[in-house]
Parts: sequence; structure tokens; C-alpha cells
Amino acid sequence: MVSSGCAVLPHPAGVAPRRRQHVPAQAFWGPERRRRLSFEARPRCHKMYVPGFGEGSPEKKAAISLLNFFNYLAVRIVLAQLESYNREAYVELKEFTSRNSVNDADSFCKNLIRESPRHKALAMRILEVRSAYMKNDFEWDNLKKLSFKMVDEANIKLMRDYVLETSHIEDEE
Amino acid sequence: MVSSGCAVLPHPAGVAPRRRQHVPAQAFWGPERRRRLSFEARPRCHKMYVPGFGEGSPEKKAAISLLNFFNYLAVRIVLAQLESYNREAYVELKEFTSRNSVNDADSFCKNLIRESPRHKALAMRILEVRSAYMKNDFEWDNLKKLSFKMVDEANIKLMRDYVLETSHIEDEE
Repeated sequence: MVSSGCAVLPHPAGVAPRRRQHVPAQAFWGPERRRRLSFEARPRCHKMYVPGFGEGSPEKKAAISLLNFFNYLAVRIVLAQLESYNREAYVELKEFTSRNSVNDADSFCKNLIRESPRHKALAMRILEVRSAYMKNDFEWDNLKKLSFKMVDEANIKLMRDYVLETSHIEDEE
Repeated sequence: MVSSGCAVLPHPAGVAPRRRQHVPAQAFWGPERRRRLSFEARPRCHKMYVPGFGEGSPEKKAAISLLNFFNYLAVRIVLAQLESYNREAYVELKEFTSRNSVNDADSFCKNLIRESPRHKALAMRILEVRSAYMKNDFEWDNLKKLSFKMVDEANIKLMRDYVLETSHIEDEE
């Protein structure tokens, strides 16, 4: 079915195959369906293959890493808020962070909830802050823009430094 | 004009300078302009304070971390491409990655460029791939969507697990 559908597409040289008269492509693949297929297929074909992600994706891995980062930010935000008006809670949270790594968001929050009822309240606040910060305060467009700018700058710097280094050696010779 | 405009703003102590009677504030800052200013300023005031970023920003820190991630992806993409059609280059790059950590993008590329002319060609390709992948293939909108979904799911899971655990203890008592 697919091959016959492809066979009746206009010939690049302008010579339409004879079958076209008998079995028009529209019979199998209506014009809308064909257009949709060609648009859908295009980005997938042009994408580079990234091995080793199995069922996940680079986007998912980046999101996991960002979640840990937002957890770390939420802890800092809550600490800064507490420092000025609830010294006791500030000291308790600070002491807890010295014993538990903030890098693994999941186990950090898991342990914090179970530490004591007061710590549980702090954990609830951190969960709320990390979600609110991510959804309202974090500038996602800016992240994309900054990343584009940084990769260009980093690439240029690496090449320029190398060229400067090698041309310097040639000058000395 | 601007400085004279500022001079006629209401005095903090309530003592309006003499000129105010003659040149009311509205003459310089019309009601629309003033309303627009207050709206523009609002989101900035509502943002949570994140301490400890100095001249940088959470967005910049996340972008740096993503650049390292894209470098790691680019190395994997190039390795996968080479494996099938340039075995020699594949073995060379593989051997280099075993000696140099891919986690620090900058020093990895710096060392790769300087390793040998053949390694330099590989480094150029990695620089190109990491930029192209980031700009064309990586799904930024999907990253944002996934992050929102993951933070909600993670928050619910943490709270549900805790509730289940504590209600289980109460059942046993």
C-alpha cells in the first residue's frame, strides 16, 4: 500500500508513471493525510540519534537534573526567608542541611519530612517553594537564550584560544 | 527634562517643592504611564529572593549545567556516528573519553583540541554538534513541560508516601 502510494507521486523529471491514471494517490492517501505525514516525518528524520537513553530522553534527564537544582534553590530561598524572622527554624534547617546533601532532592525531602513535626512543616514549605519558583519565577525563555549565547561564546573561545596558542608557537620557531 | 520630571515627584516628607504648584506631576507622568510603570514593576517585586548568586542568576547557573550536559550528549552522538563508518576515529575518541572526564565540557574540549590533529578534528565536530543539537534538536518546551509535571508528581509522591507510612504505623498501634 505504502509503496504504491509513493510510486504515484509526481515524478521528479516531470514524467508521470502510467499507473497514476488508474489508481490516483488520493485513493490511498488523501492530500491532507499525505501533507500531514510529510510534515510529521520531517523533524524526526533530521534529528541526531542520541544513544543510551532507553525509554527516557535527554529532555527527561535534563528535567531530573533541574528538579534537583530547584530543590537546592528552594532550600536557599526558605533559609533566607527564615533567617530574618524565625531564627529557631533557620538554625534547625541549616543544621539539617549540614547533615544531608541537598543535591539529591528526593532523599533530602524524604528525610526532612521524617525528621520531626517541625522539620515536616519546613519540608512542606520547600516542596511548595520549589514548585512555585519553577512555575512562576524561573525565566525559562532566558535559560534558552542564555544557553544559546553561552554555547556560541564557549565554542568561539575554545577555537580562538587554540589558534592564538598555535600561532604563538609558530612565531617563536 | 528627565531630571526636572523627577524633581516634581511628591516629596517623601510630604513637603512638596514650590515648583509643584505650577507644574503638577501629571504633566510629566500621565495616568496611563504611571499605571503601566506600576504593572511592570509588580512581577519583579513578587519574585522570591534567591541568595548567593552574586552577579550571576539561577538561570545562568542552570545554563552552565546544561552546556556540560549538551557536551556530554554531543560526545555520545559523535561516538555513535563514528562507530558505524570510522572505526579508527571511534576507538581514538573512546580511548580519550576514558582518560578525560566528559563532565567538565570546557576542559574536555580544551584537552581534545590539543591532543593531536586528528583529535582536533573530532573536537571541532563535537563543538558543532553540541551547538546544533541545542539549537535544533533539543525540545525546550518539552523540558519545561516535563519539569512542571515532574515537580508535581514528586511532591505528591513524597507526601503520599509519608501519609501512607504514618497511617500504617497508626494501624499497627
